[in-house]
Amino acid sequence: MKILISNDDGIDSIGIHKLKDALEKIAEVVVVAPRTEQSAVGHAITMKNPLRVTEYFKDGKFFGYAVDGTPADCVKMGIRNILKESPDLVVSGINHGSNTAINIIYSGTVSAAREAAIMDVPAIAISITSHTPGHFEEAGRIACELALEIEKHGLPNGTLLNVNVPDLASEEIEGVYITKQGKSKWDDIYEERIDPYGKKYFWLTGNLMESDINPDIDQYAIKNNCISITPIHFDLTDYALLPSLKKWGVERVKEKI
Amino acid sequence: MKILISNDDGIDSIGIHKLKDALEKIAEVVVVAPRTEQSAVGHAITMKNPLRVTEYFKDGKFFGYAVDGTPADCVKMGIRNILKESPDLVVSGINHGSNTAINIIYSGTVSAAREAAIMDVPAIAISITSHTPGHFEEAGRIACELALEIEKHGLPNGTLLNVNVPDLASEEIEGVYITKQGKSKWDDIYEERIDPYGKKYFWLTGNLMESDINPDIDQYAIKNNCISITPIHFDLTDYALLPSLKKWGVERVKEKI
Repeated sequence: MKILISNDDGIDSIGIHKLKDALEKIAEVVVVAPRTEQSAVGHAITMKNPLRVTEYFKDGKFFGYAVDGTPADCVKMGIRNILKESPDLVVSGINHGSNTAINIIYSGTVSAAREAAIMDVPAIAISITSHTPGHFEEAGRIACELALEIEKHGLPNGTLLNVNVPDLASEEIEGVYITKQGKSKWDDIYEERIDPYGKKYFWLTGNLMESDINPDIDQYAIKNNCISITPIHFDLTDYALLPSLKKWGVERVKEKI
Repeated sequence: MKILISNDDGIDSIGIHKLKDALEKIAEVVVVAPRTEQSAVGHAITMKNPLRVTEYFKDGKFFGYAVDGTPADCVKMGIRNILKESPDLVVSGINHGSNTAINIIYSGTVSAAREAAIMDVPAIAISITSHTPGHFEEAGRIACELALEIEKHGLPNGTLLNVNVPDLASEEIEGVYITKQGKSKWDDIYEERIDPYGKKYFWLTGNLMESDINPDIDQYAIKNNCISITPIHFDLTDYALLPSLKKWGVERVKEKI
């Protein structure tokens, strides 16, 4: 199996090094990752500026390719210009911090995997739900397990698995669940400050308002010390609304706009 | 009705000025838009840097608030710190260029509207499917019509309308259709060049591979000179895959990871 790995914390973050260590036990691994941290960039791609690719070394040994772009850029560039063919799988992570519920929308980690899904390559996004994670081995093992399962079962084109792992030792993890994306959101606060020149500026902060109380939801699994696996795709159509929207009567043929 | 408007082409682009002109006929309009162009930034938000807000004047008259951030930042900041209350509607646009099919994922225009939907505010993203649009009046009229329809019918929390308008005069537009997000994708090409110092760099280019041939799809409506209205949401769960994924047997309780 050939696996392309990327992330949004940057090529020098611990998470991607631990992910490479884990996946190398089961596959040939190629790293293409952002040169610098790209958290919360969502599915941004770089079109107005050129991209550069450089080789990145760790302890004097070639580790992978650094791209001065976003996570989605790395996957596009990795497949089109570095591998020049589709890998069997793309894995993005191991992210430092949770990518459940609404965070999926903002996440660079998930967007790297989603870019692979757009390119019809099966993909996994994997995150540890702590900003100072300690238990990379558990996340690495579940990444390997799921990589082998995907090799066996495949994934439909356009779908990826979004995996969140609580930052706990193996024996403290209470289970593994297939879940749905939660609806917990941020209560955003813009903190107002004054710069040394007397001008106002704002920092975004806030708290996650946990509203997910159903056991089949990503955020609930994590709260209960379980690993969450959510299949996600990129068809955003709100199918449930289509019939009532059609009743509004805005549809028409050849009538003056 | 109070409407917040934003965009991804920047506060000085023609599209947002035309949108304000149109919506002012039916509502009180507040503009909060990026200071500079933010195309293809997706749903990026600014967390690692502070944001600044300045008043933007046009012909010596106050036009709106410029934020040195992304479209999603503008909507968050507009609702939280400028309006300090939820508007009745957020409209994002008028974008110069199509936001159908896979482009929805990369679009800053759609992300501004989606941020509103996340904040439970009804929203519209509106684009003219040309990078050098000429027919803003038609797009402005459909934006007004849909704003009034949303005032009447409401939208479910978390849903927005993604509207694409062909760049045609009123009498050339063949109809208005409620559609689904298409599956047409980009055939990405990274053009390799050499800088004046002998180093390689890459520009992203490519062609949209039009694969949407069903009449109920956004891209098909546009190809046939019709306005496309797609309801989209941000629940990315691939519900169709859940049952077969559960059969993989990776779910388990209290078993060593």
